[in-house]
Amino acid sequence: MRADGLAGGEGGADRLGELIPVALRAMAAGVAERGGPVPAGGPAAVAAALVAERGELGQVTAGADGTGRTSPAALPRTGVGAEAALEHLSRLLAAGSADPGDPACAAHLHCPPLAVSVAADVVASALNPSMDSWDQAPVASELEREFTAGIARLCYPRAGNPDAVVTTGGTESNLLGLLLARERNPRAQPVCGANAHHSVARAAWLLGLPAPIVVPCAGDRLVPGALAGVLTPDSVVVATAGTTNTGTLDPLPEIAGICRRHGARLHVDAAYGGMALCSESLKPRLDGLDLADSVALDLHKFGWQPVAAGLFAAREAAELAALTVRAEYLNADDDTEAGLPDLLGRSIRTSRRPDAFRMAVTVHALGTDGLGALVERCCATATEVARLVDGHPGLRLWGAPELSTVVLRPVVADEAGGAAGDELVARVRRALLEAGTAVIGRAALPAGPGGENRLWLKLTLLHPHTTAEDYRPLLDRIAATAGAELPAGRESPVAS
Amino acid sequence: MRADGLAGGEGGADRLGELIPVALRAMAAGVAERGGPVPAGGPAAVAAALVAERGELGQVTAGADGTGRTSPAALPRTGVGAEAALEHLSRLLAAGSADPGDPACAAHLHCPPLAVSVAADVVASALNPSMDSWDQAPVASELEREFTAGIARLCYPRAGNPDAVVTTGGTESNLLGLLLARERNPRAQPVCGANAHHSVARAAWLLGLPAPIVVPCAGDRLVPGALAGVLTPDSVVVATAGTTNTGTLDPLPEIAGICRRHGARLHVDAAYGGMALCSESLKPRLDGLDLADSVALDLHKFGWQPVAAGLFAAREAAELAALTVRAEYLNADDDTEAGLPDLLGRSIRTSRRPDAFRMAVTVHALGTDGLGALVERCCATATEVARLVDGHPGLRLWGAPELSTVVLRPVVADEAGGAAGDELVARVRRALLEAGTAVIGRAALPAGPGGENRLWLKLTLLHPHTTAEDYRPLLDRIAATAGAELPAGRESPVAS
Repeated sequence: MRADGLAGGEGGADRLGELIPVALRAMAAGVAERGGPVPAGGPAAVAAALVAERGELGQVTAGADGTGRTSPAALPRTGVGAEAALEHLSRLLAAGSADPGDPACAAHLHCPPLAVSVAADVVASALNPSMDSWDQAPVASELEREFTAGIARLCYPRAGNPDAVVTTGGTESNLLGLLLARERNPRAQPVCGANAHHSVARAAWLLGLPAPIVVPCAGDRLVPGALAGVLTPDSVVVATAGTTNTGTLDPLPEIAGICRRHGARLHVDAAYGGMALCSESLKPRLDGLDLADSVALDLHKFGWQPVAAGLFAAREAAELAALTVRAEYLNADDDTEAGLPDLLGRSIRTSRRPDAFRMAVTVHALGTDGLGALVERCCATATEVARLVDGHPGLRLWGAPELSTVVLRPVVADEAGGAAGDELVARVRRALLEAGTAVIGRAALPAGPGGENRLWLKLTLLHPHTTAEDYRPLLDRIAATAGAELPAGRESPVAS
Repeated sequence: MRADGLAGGEGGADRLGELIPVALRAMAAGVAERGGPVPAGGPAAVAAALVAERGELGQVTAGADGTGRTSPAALPRTGVGAEAALEHLSRLLAAGSADPGDPACAAHLHCPPLAVSVAADVVASALNPSMDSWDQAPVASELEREFTAGIARLCYPRAGNPDAVVTTGGTESNLLGLLLARERNPRAQPVCGANAHHSVARAAWLLGLPAPIVVPCAGDRLVPGALAGVLTPDSVVVATAGTTNTGTLDPLPEIAGICRRHGARLHVDAAYGGMALCSESLKPRLDGLDLADSVALDLHKFGWQPVAAGLFAAREAAELAALTVRAEYLNADDDTEAGLPDLLGRSIRTSRRPDAFRMAVTVHALGTDGLGALVERCCATATEVARLVDGHPGLRLWGAPELSTVVLRPVVADEAGGAAGDELVARVRRALLEAGTAVIGRAALPAGPGGENRLWLKLTLLHPHTTAEDYRPLLDRIAATAGAELPAGRESPVAS
């Protein structure tokens, strides 16, 4: 078929029906070629594979002079056709991906997406609703309104008039939390725990606010008492419901109480933990969330959406008016008065993909009960894996998981001690990554209250169909690799 | 199949092979049901169709009390399964979309996506590379580097070390343009033409910069002489290469010269016009673009990508260091020293979808020559349509198109005059939208130098497979609708 066939309009579905199978076959071939969670060899091997693939495509590129001279930086001038490009690059992407669909890919809050969400996204891509005006997204904007209203209600079951908007993720949602604070009070001063995500400080920087005041944590949890000496009515506190390092939840009711007493605002970064609201058994861990002025949620973590699926909920819908903007061509007053919904104030972006569509399809397919069950399963698996770690002679557990993150350390790293132990931990992670056998994370955390930060390994378990037994070989491998990484002349009593 | 099947890992391609055809069949059914560019009836009818569809799904939702009581705002607790959710909602989305794959959907810079891009995106969604660390996106990050290097070279063919990053669109790219200026000079003062996109003022607001100084335009083109009295070394000028209203290009060489003489920075918003660089015949219109410090590009306009496909190019790669950020878990110093590429400073987002993948597949499929040919075709069609408007007894042409936007006005609106004429123009647009027969845009523009702003109609032609003849019936319909919308008692000599 023609390389320039369109996905929408009449015949669009037929063209997609021809091309998508080409892409899926290539993807399956690439997954088989990889044969593990991540390609072996590290960055050098992956870059080399890409260069080799370029040779196969054999395209002519051109430099600035238009002579057809090959320039490595230039885009190809001539095309190879839709099928050939899809075949080559889809296989390459699959073979060269860190695939969270493989249980041993467990480093980050990087979930394996649900097939139903990916299938829904095809329709969204093909029809290309752009969420900045009603006449580009008639029903897509209605579906988004319905979905975000449901999310707002999930976060704020008792509020009079909550609302939510779609974002690109926790980073944008945390920025909106600080932005709303700034728009109410230009002297807004961010305050967060040492456990907060880096995006809080970054948002302050972007918005021209002072750098956050950082209060101490114990066990990766903000110490509420430490807030008391810091808060003023200008403060905007960012608490965390599920830290990136350990999945620990800040004590929200206490923090909300202190904020109220000092007249401070409260934003909760629940990008990781928020969807536990879908589980009756886990929901109590989020008590106090609805006392926050705003909440960040990510359905590309628990929610199993492809990136991006961020949400930002506000207890008072009226506060979102801070995002209001007028553009004659998109939301002229007379159009709005004539009944055309004004979408432009629903985001700090303008053109915007309907990410709410695949989120809504997923929620209709599984129900919040179904999503809650998947969250429970991941958390239960993490608890089981933590037990395996605790009983492993070569590993030490950081602490009981509160969500689905298991933090651990090879015993030999403790024996190596100090910086040498940290270096060993970092090398273990890189060795497994380079071998292509596992993708695990790292976290700098103190061993106990007031202690120095040490480097730990981290498993973030977001695969909803695994059991603890799937991770037992990985734990053994971590311990064995740590033994092998010991400096020459030292030998671990465990890994030998 | 199970509603919670995964798109990636082993068997992922098979599950997608089952579900995507369900979605595509439903999409085709919805497109047929719509039978035009946009659903008829306006916002009320679209909202009502959604409510009816909800009834069909028959799901139980629950309020805060968990009693199963139906609440309109609550998400459904029980799922209907993947197939049922996909069938219902995909058909609903297709039936209720403003589909740019229909030539009569021509209001905005809202393109019909290429099937090859949508097919490539399936693989990206399924494998879910997240572009914030190498161990989440090994080959995806290499592909992005290669692609953005090519884009940087396209914008800056003679620069020593240009670079580019992926954004969510022109809005974020314009923000990055101002952000880089602010990071070099905290006293940065934005300056732009009256023709600039609203995102320039919005970015200044977000970044805590002063509101832009707005200089006048003539014929929707920034008047370079007007800059001379305004610029200081603190100025950061935003020029436009293809305005949203008319597609007019600012005189970049003159503007760049004035900026250089005043020591001012220059960012060019080429979100619309930038991809004309792929056409040998159109490229000269962008002369001077490479004199800018930075450039915004959108491949979800010319480029035929689903939203989002934004790019930001900087003449000096080193300036992007302003985006550098450290997060222990994503780009620790020792990991970077050990050879793991640091991706976090490539965006102001953290988790990030690999939009570069489908852009790269598209460019490999068509080549830049192929994309350039599509840009040329749209521009040539616009020129032809403008000729039809010019010869139409009921319509008046604003001016010759420079890219693919045709701006016109019903003659009866001129006759009605002043505010009454503007109201008529606005009503014509809404009447066509409500009838479901056409989606056309609006633009407030002066008729001549120094004149007052009047409301015009706008066709933004991004459909690459149409000819001017496809738009002749639309022009007749606009003229006829304008006649019909005349206040009672007045009659147009043309439309009667």
